Amino acid sequence: MKVEILAVGTELLLGNIVNTNAQYIATRLADLGIDVYHQAVVGDNSERLLKAYEQAFERADLVITTGGLGPTKDDITKEVAFDYFGKTAILHEDILKTIEEYFKKINKDMVESNKKQAYFPEDAIILNNKVGTAPGCIIESNNKILIVLPGPPKEMKPMFEDCVVPYLMKYQDGVLASKVLRVIGVGESATAEIIEDIIDTGKNPTVATYAKDNEVTIRLTSKAKTEDDAFELIKPVEEEIKKRLGIAVYAEGDVSLEDTVGKILIENNLTISTAESCTGGLLASKLINYPGISSVFKEGAITYSNDSKIKRLKVKKETLEKFGAVSSQVAAEMAEGIAKVTNSNIGLSTTGIAGPSGGSLEKPVGLVYIGLYIKGEVRTKELHLTGDRQRIRNTAVIRAIDWLRIELLRKQ
Amino acid sequence: MKVEILAVGTELLLGNIVNTNAQYIATRLADLGIDVYHQAVVGDNSERLLKAYEQAFERADLVITTGGLGPTKDDITKEVAFDYFGKTAILHEDILKTIEEYFKKINKDMVESNKKQAYFPEDAIILNNKVGTAPGCIIESNNKILIVLPGPPKEMKPMFEDCVVPYLMKYQDGVLASKVLRVIGVGESATAEIIEDIIDTGKNPTVATYAKDNEVTIRLTSKAKTEDDAFELIKPVEEEIKKRLGIAVYAEGDVSLEDTVGKILIENNLTISTAESCTGGLLASKLINYPGISSVFKEGAITYSNDSKIKRLKVKKETLEKFGAVSSQVAAEMAEGIAKVTNSNIGLSTTGIAGPSGGSLEKPVGLVYIGLYIKGEVRTKELHLTGDRQRIRNTAVIRAIDWLRIELLRKQ
Repeated sequence: MKVEILAVGTELLLGNIVNTNAQYIATRLADLGIDVYHQAVVGDNSERLLKAYEQAFERADLVITTGGLGPTKDDITKEVAFDYFGKTAILHEDILKTIEEYFKKINKDMVESNKKQAYFPEDAIILNNKVGTAPGCIIESNNKILIVLPGPPKEMKPMFEDCVVPYLMKYQDGVLASKVLRVIGVGESATAEIIEDIIDTGKNPTVATYAKDNEVTIRLTSKAKTEDDAFELIKPVEEEIKKRLGIAVYAEGDVSLEDTVGKILIENNLTISTAESCTGGLLASKLINYPGISSVFKEGAITYSNDSKIKRLKVKKETLEKFGAVSSQVAAEMAEGIAKVTNSNIGLSTTGIAGPSGGSLEKPVGLVYIGLYIKGEVRTKELHLTGDRQRIRNTAVIRAIDWLRIELLRKQ
Repeated sequence: MKVEILAVGTELLLGNIVNTNAQYIATRLADLGIDVYHQAVVGDNSERLLKAYEQAFERADLVITTGGLGPTKDDITKEVAFDYFGKTAILHEDILKTIEEYFKKINKDMVESNKKQAYFPEDAIILNNKVGTAPGCIIESNNKILIVLPGPPKEMKPMFEDCVVPYLMKYQDGVLASKVLRVIGVGESATAEIIEDIIDTGKNPTVATYAKDNEVTIRLTSKAKTEDDAFELIKPVEEEIKKRLGIAVYAEGDVSLEDTVGKILIENNLTISTAESCTGGLLASKLINYPGISSVFKEGAITYSNDSKIKRLKVKKETLEKFGAVSSQVAAEMAEGIAKVTNSNIGLSTTGIAGPSGGSLEKPVGLVYIGLYIKGEVRTKELHLTGDRQRIRNTAVIRAIDWLRIELLRKQ
């Protein structure tokens, strides 16, 4: 089955909003093993929209639209579709009642124009909208299928999951299963190289890598008669990937790096404090993303100035003078200092040059030192990072937390 | 002139990345007063790409593509375009030299396949890539224009600004000028309501609002014979908008909230320290986004536990017991405490319930207190925020910094 995604909305053509709907639907269709060859965006213009339907159905068997289901006269996605299929829309009293009830629930008066949202052809499959007034619909006609969804992502996503996925599964023989492995510390091209043969030959499961925010995601998707069988197919391939990438695979599924590290800290009852210079609070805030961290996170210090490094962390004035604030020696004293003044098992520190200015030939922008103190032992790591101020700071944070993760695993 | 945007890349069809390029280009074309009626996405497939060119040029005079300019055999945007126009590509030695120099600069060896990036038709206008290896190009043929740009946004954007905008200006009668006002503390719909008549009647300048990350941007764009004339047209409208929105307009142009506040602090030689609970370092890291802040930012404390609030900030044990950690009383003591222990003029604090758990009927998720100590005076603010953990924390940070901005302006 060939599928296309057609977003309708002048606000997309003007660039007022990003078409995240297309990405969401594309990802979910890929999960289901359904091919998408084309995406398009058109404005709220009946002539151009009709042409877009014609061209889309020349190429595809199924078209999914988003947007243009509102109550105003600009919203024409449904109406043009009914014209395209030569279908007459009638008022569905039950749908109108649902819309009226929705307005009661949110304590607002329904305006007359909302009635428009209850008109559909008699034989359309109507898709319930749990979080808004605009129902979607599915029209099947002459071996073509049109699925019409609302534009706001918070309305579109639940409708897609609750109504569209079960509908599409009818067209699939068998059941799909997928598993996600999360990799850090190895870039996407290096990851792809290490498992190149698996990606190239993988049919069932298929294996794909995605890079985002300093990490790489590997998705394995298989198809079989039952879900259990599908997961059985994934297992040996997953094991082979894990064997090759080793400790770089930090989690499975929807688990973040800070969740992983937070859990290890809590399981081992290890308390932690942070001392940050160039990352300025990002390191602590990342750790604190994990809601369970409060029982082990003792304190974070943002010691941007030399003065605060001396006063708060007991970094020696001579160390600062001799080696400079951006040095492995200062990173070490910061990590040890914060652990000791807060009486924590672990101290994690950063000091570096995030730019745009402040760099020199000897200490260029992007030079960052991480200090890690664990139970009496202190070590440092030197990083040479690229990108702008924000990217250098973000990468330094990820590398620091990942180093902590690896050291914790080694010590177990 | 009718323009279309065509993004090329299987990674977009699979949903691995969002098509932010289309939004960027759409916004900039709207600024230039150029109409876009269609956007499309196709994969790295020569047959479908050729068809996409044909259909795009049936509708439009000018097509802008993004993506598919890499060195691998999958990257075919240029090659298919040359075929479409019936043009032969030849090796441009000067371009090859630029690419070779780029690799030297980043200390990497150029691979043979990169040579492909130096092939263009003899009469193509070649667009220099400042941050990557892939040059873009413009092909003019039979009253049709094709502009080919690289896919990575950090390469596409400077090429668009430096090469495409000046090129497109040739097709404009007159000169465009635009000005951006940044608004915080008033939502997009409220902003739009306050200046509704200006937006509705505005032709020259046009006025548009965009919402992003807790702030609203107002863009005024005018057209005139000269740039000075165009800015003259903007002036009275800008003044009327500023009059109506007052202090909510925090900056003009490409200036962030933290830049604005950082500058006020430095101008007035006011030192600041932060004490964070629920925001966990985000407040400090936001302030530190402003590279100039180091001379006034003394220290940040992330005191997540009661124990650290008592030890580090001298919050009274009785206050914590009587009112709880999430209370205006504790926010006040945190702000005053961090200012005093660090000897700063200003102390800014946050304490709240970011969720997902930890809320109660009396103190629900989203309840956040901000404490602000300025030179002997301490005040607090109670916020009721919505959204997930991340959103509550981010909004709390923006509201805290904006409150500081307003108080600083009032004290001037």
